[in-house]
Amino acid sequence: MSKIMSVAETVAEASLGRFDRDTAVELRETGLYEARLSPRWATGRKVNGGYLLSLAGRALGDTLPHPHPFTVTAHYLAAPSAGTACIRTETARVGRTVSSGSAVLYQTDDRSRKAECVRALATHADLSALPDDVHTTTKRPAMPPPELCLRTSEHPASGSGPGESGPSSEMSDQLSLRYDPATCGWAVGAPSGRGEMRAWVSHADGRDQDPLSLLQVVDALPSPAFEMGFKGWVPTVELTVHIRARPAPGPVLVSILSENLAGGFLEEDVQVWDGDDRLVAQARQLARVGRN
Amino acid sequence: MSKIMSVAETVAEASLGRFDRDTAVELRETGLYEARLSPRWATGRKVNGGYLLSLAGRALGDTLPHPHPFTVTAHYLAAPSAGTACIRTETARVGRTVSSGSAVLYQTDDRSRKAECVRALATHADLSALPDDVHTTTKRPAMPPPELCLRTSEHPASGSGPGESGPSSEMSDQLSLRYDPATCGWAVGAPSGRGEMRAWVSHADGRDQDPLSLLQVVDALPSPAFEMGFKGWVPTVELTVHIRARPAPGPVLVSILSENLAGGFLEEDVQVWDGDDRLVAQARQLARVGRN
Repeated sequence: MSKIMSVAETVAEASLGRFDRDTAVELRETGLYEARLSPRWATGRKVNGGYLLSLAGRALGDTLPHPHPFTVTAHYLAAPSAGTACIRTETARVGRTVSSGSAVLYQTDDRSRKAECVRALATHADLSALPDDVHTTTKRPAMPPPELCLRTSEHPASGSGPGESGPSSEMSDQLSLRYDPATCGWAVGAPSGRGEMRAWVSHADGRDQDPLSLLQVVDALPSPAFEMGFKGWVPTVELTVHIRARPAPGPVLVSILSENLAGGFLEEDVQVWDGDDRLVAQARQLARVGRN
Repeated sequence: MSKIMSVAETVAEASLGRFDRDTAVELRETGLYEARLSPRWATGRKVNGGYLLSLAGRALGDTLPHPHPFTVTAHYLAAPSAGTACIRTETARVGRTVSSGSAVLYQTDDRSRKAECVRALATHADLSALPDDVHTTTKRPAMPPPELCLRTSEHPASGSGPGESGPSSEMSDQLSLRYDPATCGWAVGAPSGRGEMRAWVSHADGRDQDPLSLLQVVDALPSPAFEMGFKGWVPTVELTVHIRARPAPGPVLVSILSENLAGGFLEEDVQVWDGDDRLVAQARQLARVGRN
């Protein structure tokens, strides 16, 4: 942002995590925000879809009276470039428990043409105000503790797409990912053939996860398509995230299962578990495979 | 619709199924459609959410160049009444393989105030044009054949909510549902306690399912919350549907699993299998429990 900050603002900003600074949005007029898409949340030259969803969520969190994303869907229309973007938000309904609205993230080229990159639809809630009953019956997947998991700075799709000879993944510098050894055969050229991917995820700078950052985390791992032996980019068509509880401090377990690859597209089902074994988020995306 | 039909149109309309007539939309101006919400697709006085999604899908199918809903999300903002409604559509992006847009379904009261009922975000495709590879690994749930399943015209929530003393379910007259005996303890006051609900579904008038009607079918069964022992309406906050293939003629198997009831809300995961054992649709909704 180009605004001149006071000393107090500078100090406050310095205490924020990288994620908070990189998802900052600035109100330009009612329902219009400016953001700066950071190359730090890209893989190759592709800005991460979960990061884009967090930006939309941040603008919607400012627009709607309820603070937390509760159920959010994004359709990815065009890949944006790092740099300035605008987010236009609209309130659809304000209720007592939840409120709903839309967001459109777009970029403007040097001939003032707007390119719409992401369109999102969201219902927000105050997760702290929900009753504390938990009847979750699905079980946390078995997973070795972080110290027995593998780290890799590689991304199976980095540099493999057309025009992808740019800088290697920067997102891996922002996140600490510890992969389940059973699901990262792709990293050594020996994919398991199963549509599974699991990792412990935390921010490299120690910032804890919260409802907003979970919107990014659900899209932080490589696609299970790589573990199924597919190569090349797996662009997301649509991503829906339910944030069901505020995560406890510490790493979260992200588990992805893909069971329906057909017609050139696959579904990816994501669970996010916090350190208290609470299922804090569920997500599903529809993505395209095999576009080398 | 009030338009005067020719003899040819009358004959053509008569050969359509009930569902086609009840989801008819009429273009009023670019991007604005009029529809008539039929009480035939209501349970008690609540117009079915899947039926509303089909109406939005029909308007979007007219607006977008690709015919079939591929991934569609609806947020339910207010319960509409049977009668006239308007659907405003907007194209976001037209691509070669898919196109995307939004729809808003609203009603206008006698003082000309608009009430927004449903907001939807959709990407359409031509399912016939997708490659025919199928690598689906999830298995069709075990299910007795339709002749060994149970029929009931009851709906566990009919008449149990406030102001719900109106006509009993009409939707059950349009659809033939044959429930798995293992998942309809609710019908005899003995819910199993498990978040499962399964039924064979076909249209009572013999109309086969297609991508549009699958948008309704994913929301045709009672909530698994009833089989878990909860009572009262389970209003949908958000419903996302992926239509992955055109269904074969004949009944489809709808299987719902709910594994995360917490904080007063539950997720419902839906699979729809056709008679060729193809997973033709997946859906997930977030709904609220326990509002008697």
